[in-house]
Amino acid sequence: MSGNTFGKILQLTSFGESHGKAIGGVIDGFPAGIKIDLSVIQHELSRRKPGQSKLVSSRQEPDNLEILSGIYEGYSTGTSIAFLVWNKDQKAIDYDHLKDKFRPSHADFVYHEKYGHRDHRGGGRSSARETIARVVAGSFAKILLNKLGVSISSYVCSIGEVTLQKDYIDLDLSKIDESLVRCPDEEHSVKMIRQIEETAKMGDTLGGMIKCVIQNVPIGLGEPVFDKLHADFGKAMLSINAVKGFEIGSGFESTKMRGSEHNDQFVEKGGKIVTRTNFSGGVQGGISNGMDIYFNVAFKPVATLMKDQRTINDQGEEVILKGKGRHDVCVVPRAVPIVDAMAALVLADHYLRNLTRRI
Amino acid sequence: MSGNTFGKILQLTSFGESHGKAIGGVIDGFPAGIKIDLSVIQHELSRRKPGQSKLVSSRQEPDNLEILSGIYEGYSTGTSIAFLVWNKDQKAIDYDHLKDKFRPSHADFVYHEKYGHRDHRGGGRSSARETIARVVAGSFAKILLNKLGVSISSYVCSIGEVTLQKDYIDLDLSKIDESLVRCPDEEHSVKMIRQIEETAKMGDTLGGMIKCVIQNVPIGLGEPVFDKLHADFGKAMLSINAVKGFEIGSGFESTKMRGSEHNDQFVEKGGKIVTRTNFSGGVQGGISNGMDIYFNVAFKPVATLMKDQRTINDQGEEVILKGKGRHDVCVVPRAVPIVDAMAALVLADHYLRNLTRRI
Amino acid sequence: MSGNTFGKILQLTSFGESHGKAIGGVIDGFPAGIKIDLSVIQHELSRRKPGQSKLVSSRQEPDNLEILSGIYEGYSTGTSIAFLVWNKDQKAIDYDHLKDKFRPSHADFVYHEKYGHRDHRGGGRSSARETIARVVAGSFAKILLNKLGVSISSYVCSIGEVTLQKDYIDLDLSKIDESLVRCPDEEHSVKMIRQIEETAKMGDTLGGMIKCVIQNVPIGLGEPVFDKLHADFGKAMLSINAVKGFEIGSGFESTKMRGSEHNDQFVEKGGKIVTRTNFSGGVQGGISNGMDIYFNVAFKPVATLMKDQRTINDQGEEVILKGKGRHDVCVVPRAVPIVDAMAALVLADHYLRNLTRRI
Amino acid sequence: MSGNTFGKILQLTSFGESHGKAIGGVIDGFPAGIKIDLSVIQHELSRRKPGQSKLVSSRQEPDNLEILSGIYEGYSTGTSIAFLVWNKDQKAIDYDHLKDKFRPSHADFVYHEKYGHRDHRGGGRSSARETIARVVAGSFAKILLNKLGVSISSYVCSIGEVTLQKDYIDLDLSKIDESLVRCPDEEHSVKMIRQIEETAKMGDTLGGMIKCVIQNVPIGLGEPVFDKLHADFGKAMLSINAVKGFEIGSGFESTKMRGSEHNDQFVEKGGKIVTRTNFSGGVQGGISNGMDIYFNVAFKPVATLMKDQRTINDQGEEVILKGKGRHDVCVVPRAVPIVDAMAALVLADHYLRNLTRRI
Repeated sequence: MSGNTFGKILQLTSFGESHGKAIGGVIDGFPAGIKIDLSVIQHELSRRKPGQSKLVSSRQEPDNLEILSGIYEGYSTGTSIAFLVWNKDQKAIDYDHLKDKFRPSHADFVYHEKYGHRDHRGGGRSSARETIARVVAGSFAKILLNKLGVSISSYVCSIGEVTLQKDYIDLDLSKIDESLVRCPDEEHSVKMIRQIEETAKMGDTLGGMIKCVIQNVPIGLGEPVFDKLHADFGKAMLSINAVKGFEIGSGFESTKMRGSEHNDQFVEKGGKIVTRTNFSGGVQGGISNGMDIYFNVAFKPVATLMKDQRTINDQGEEVILKGKGRHDVCVVPRAVPIVDAMAALVLADHYLRNLTRRI
Repeated sequence: MSGNTFGKILQLTSFGESHGKAIGGVIDGFPAGIKIDLSVIQHELSRRKPGQSKLVSSRQEPDNLEILSGIYEGYSTGTSIAFLVWNKDQKAIDYDHLKDKFRPSHADFVYHEKYGHRDHRGGGRSSARETIARVVAGSFAKILLNKLGVSISSYVCSIGEVTLQKDYIDLDLSKIDESLVRCPDEEHSVKMIRQIEETAKMGDTLGGMIKCVIQNVPIGLGEPVFDKLHADFGKAMLSINAVKGFEIGSGFESTKMRGSEHNDQFVEKGGKIVTRTNFSGGVQGGISNGMDIYFNVAFKPVATLMKDQRTINDQGEEVILKGKGRHDVCVVPRAVPIVDAMAALVLADHYLRNLTRRI
Repeated sequence: MSGNTFGKILQLTSFGESHGKAIGGVIDGFPAGIKIDLSVIQHELSRRKPGQSKLVSSRQEPDNLEILSGIYEGYSTGTSIAFLVWNKDQKAIDYDHLKDKFRPSHADFVYHEKYGHRDHRGGGRSSARETIARVVAGSFAKILLNKLGVSISSYVCSIGEVTLQKDYIDLDLSKIDESLVRCPDEEHSVKMIRQIEETAKMGDTLGGMIKCVIQNVPIGLGEPVFDKLHADFGKAMLSINAVKGFEIGSGFESTKMRGSEHNDQFVEKGGKIVTRTNFSGGVQGGISNGMDIYFNVAFKPVATLMKDQRTINDQGEEVILKGKGRHDVCVVPRAVPIVDAMAALVLADHYLRNLTRRI
Repeated sequence: MSGNTFGKILQLTSFGESHGKAIGGVIDGFPAGIKIDLSVIQHELSRRKPGQSKLVSSRQEPDNLEILSGIYEGYSTGTSIAFLVWNKDQKAIDYDHLKDKFRPSHADFVYHEKYGHRDHRGGGRSSARETIARVVAGSFAKILLNKLGVSISSYVCSIGEVTLQKDYIDLDLSKIDESLVRCPDEEHSVKMIRQIEETAKMGDTLGGMIKCVIQNVPIGLGEPVFDKLHADFGKAMLSINAVKGFEIGSGFESTKMRGSEHNDQFVEKGGKIVTRTNFSGGVQGGISNGMDIYFNVAFKPVATLMKDQRTINDQGEEVILKGKGRHDVCVVPRAVPIVDAMAALVLADHYLRNLTRRI
């Protein structure tokens, strides 16, 4: 109820501040008897962590996963699974100059107003470091979905003005991690890297877009009228730090199309009912139809600059904010495993929910 | 849990099929002692109903609201408020030819697959007629928000290729309902109407975009990390029939901006802390900052055409779908009160939730 | 969240006041494709309704069930099922003398304090007439459970001092409804009827106890650590008007036993693991073990007397409350179908929840 | 949803197995800005822990509380509060002989059947060691309630046949912890201790009863019709290991009383409306009326005996279970802080819920 729990049957309850002791969560509702390979989860964490390449924040965090409960002899027991990652490289002193200042387009001001008392260090609870819990829980969800044959592949399709126009069908999604920016098209990957490096020199920051593609989805997932599958994907994505937009299938472009162009015609193919086109993005009436699900997620540019900015402190006085610390110029590549994770949580939850709809 | 309840403290549980007996809902968590003017709610229903103008479906439904509980002598009692609208003009026979056919880009196929047994008449539960319940409950939420001084104004900002580029600041939002298409700019309103009429002649359909503007919002609404205010707006909007995209503030455009352009600088103005720009769209870190909230909602073109279409029936045979019935060429104008309603439900729910965060 | 919804997957949201327009509810999460025989549900309603015998309130209500949604051609569609029963015989005028008075051991005072504004007629929302919604929803749950072979049998085991000491094993549970007081032991039934008639003459009222026996329960239902099966039964029963106590299996008597007497020894019987005794009452560690579930529910005496009583009005002045109206001397016999219904709701919900615990 | 979360606004999500790494939980919805004295919480943990006296299990656990998030500079921040207690003295080897055996009246069999795969060591998740999380979260709730002036006092009122008949009004509730068995009446305390010691010699075990008294409760807490205050107390208590019964106010005794005896007459006293008697136990119609709340909780005798018992293993073979390990003869004294804690969680949650019922 109070904002730190996600999901209805498969539920993640998350905790932790950027410079507190640890980040972690409790996963409840994970079915019993599923083999858990922790190295798979640790691998996803490494895709998210800072310091993984020259392009991202140099904060050094091993981000080693520790499981506290719910797994016994390598298999889930059906009880709640608690996990955490200790915060190690907490240079809280870096944040002393920010204690009473409201950084522009950060959450400092609203946390101050809402809660009165807050942990300002590194953004506290509003830091994207909380997404560690999402990645861990999402990895559990992925393990479950893998048993069903579902695959989830997110990649960066734009950074700043560099935009990959190709359809996902024409990309090799197995190559996402070969690119430092997680763009599976080599030409665009190079351009994106260059743009990040150039922007970094100017002390400025970038946004971008991630496309998520989900294949081999069971038909029938989604719970109308409110918990439509794409509505839950939308909420999941919009709850990630810095996300400003979400569109599924034809998305915003659909507003300019005619119904006769946009309708996905049903046809039979190899004994299965499929659609000839897939403007719907794999979801119709809020329920998966078995076609590929794909959606875009828009990330605004990073709010922390390496430039001085004017702002206000908690006394309402105008002050100058110095640009310092260890920050990403562009978080979009590191957000790829987070988008994967949230997509997996939504889908696994709906899979479990759907088990109860017919007996 | 099963998809027909929306909200956490202020909760709407909705019911009803297009051609069943009635559409309605139960509102729980509405505070006691609030004066309820039913004519205000009936007015919102009239904004949504078919037959309101030459541009929309000619289905004749009085859509008269009936309250069954929870209000006594004109005031809310704090107990659950049940309401319904009877379905009158149910030409179910119109749908007999569709019984076993899966209409393209409709929910027929997925309901058939998910539930096995379904009410096919008029789309049954998947019909947009279910939004009656949203409009009624949203009107209750608006009554609550009005007491706080909040105003919500949605309008049509595009239909097909006709797009209103003006900023909402430059529009007179009191004029929305003076336009048949609910676009407060007269010039664009005329163009939109023309586009609808021309498309109707061709038996084709249109989509479009609605912008929602919320003013005078209390600071502090939104519950990170998952129930961020804009994430809940996003889910609310994406749960409306035909919606394919959502963006708040700078939205998808933000992906191309630099941080130095995009950051909203805090300044003091008349004793209050405000931001000089508002790319954030009134929400930072998932919490309202007191600035105007604004977001866009993308609607795909209507799936029901007045043209023949190929499709498949439940035996997997190819069949022709005849274009007939009473349908909208473009639902976007009628969706305006639905967007208003869902926005109000989200905001009122978060207002109540926030009452518990400090004692 | 706000108290009118029960269950997690199979959810009843209830509405209605004693003298409002209607009592009803919305059932969400009921699986699709289940044949619904409405006459079975109407029969359960008749077991609950006033005027069914000389022993109970003479309020004349046909209590005819009306289904508004979620059932099509006799089968559930998996969408929300709304239903209502119109209030007909509303002699609200009977309650005018009570408008500002707080009846002893009724909810008038607390509703006044909590909500400020209330419908006082017949107790409004606090009236036991709301249990109509429980009985209807519980009947749906029973239909689902019947498909699994589960049977639920509640009966009256005490009224006032008349107490049936026999074990349920020694009773013929098919004879419950042959008794006006729903006690399947003829000798005790006669004594109970006599006690009610004698107490009625004195203008006084009685309480009593109901035992619920559930047989052929699947093993594995219940969700520790908080949603233990018996904890949910306890909550369900304690939420019924006038209930003051709940005990499962050996209950309060267990506090005086030694572990060596109380432990239920596991033995094999016909290829199944059973227990030799069943002090656990069919639930161990919060999970059903396949043995009979049985529990007792204690009802206090009816608070409305046919005698004058002293009390206070909303001005804090002492006043005399006249005994009049149409009231039960003892509600326990009419509460039997309510206990059945709540037990069914709990069990069906846990059955559906358990479907998600292994894949 | 999956059983490890308790509460609606103030929510505890709990985790941990008896012989896993740690026991802990996440508290969400705790209001911001509340001063947290950790020594108060640690003190409650010490009241619960084994090894605290000669009468209880000699398992040596320091049970030191570690807070991971949600508290900064001694005050709550309104974000999720994670905490844990490491398991130290895990003599898992003690349990090897039990791995495949189903201990009578324990949860081994049902966990095996429900989940397939389980951590058998010390009962795993079904161990009462999970109540550590309840005590910690309940202590937070108590801190909140203390600010409102509410006091919660639970004590042992029976062990085996030794029953304290005195009304709580006649006891000095400040003396509860002066007794090894937490019975504030010295004479009965001595008798209870003697009974435990004698039963221990025989290798047998005892149950008993706890009374909880809550004073200075705000009027208006409780959310009918399902989330009645006493229904939530009942569920909370029945979810504690070994609890078989719950009764509030007059409880099971009420079934034998006449309405004219049982009704609590309203009177004015010092400008406040109170009741002359309090058979209702401080709750009417499911809402607190400002009078003392009191209820009884029945605990069955401990299932682990120091005697040999016959049982079945997971192959369905009959086996002998040896009595060994470090176990309590009677857990009731150690359950006192758990009853306190669960009562506090329920009441604090309802306090927060009630804040939203009028604006």
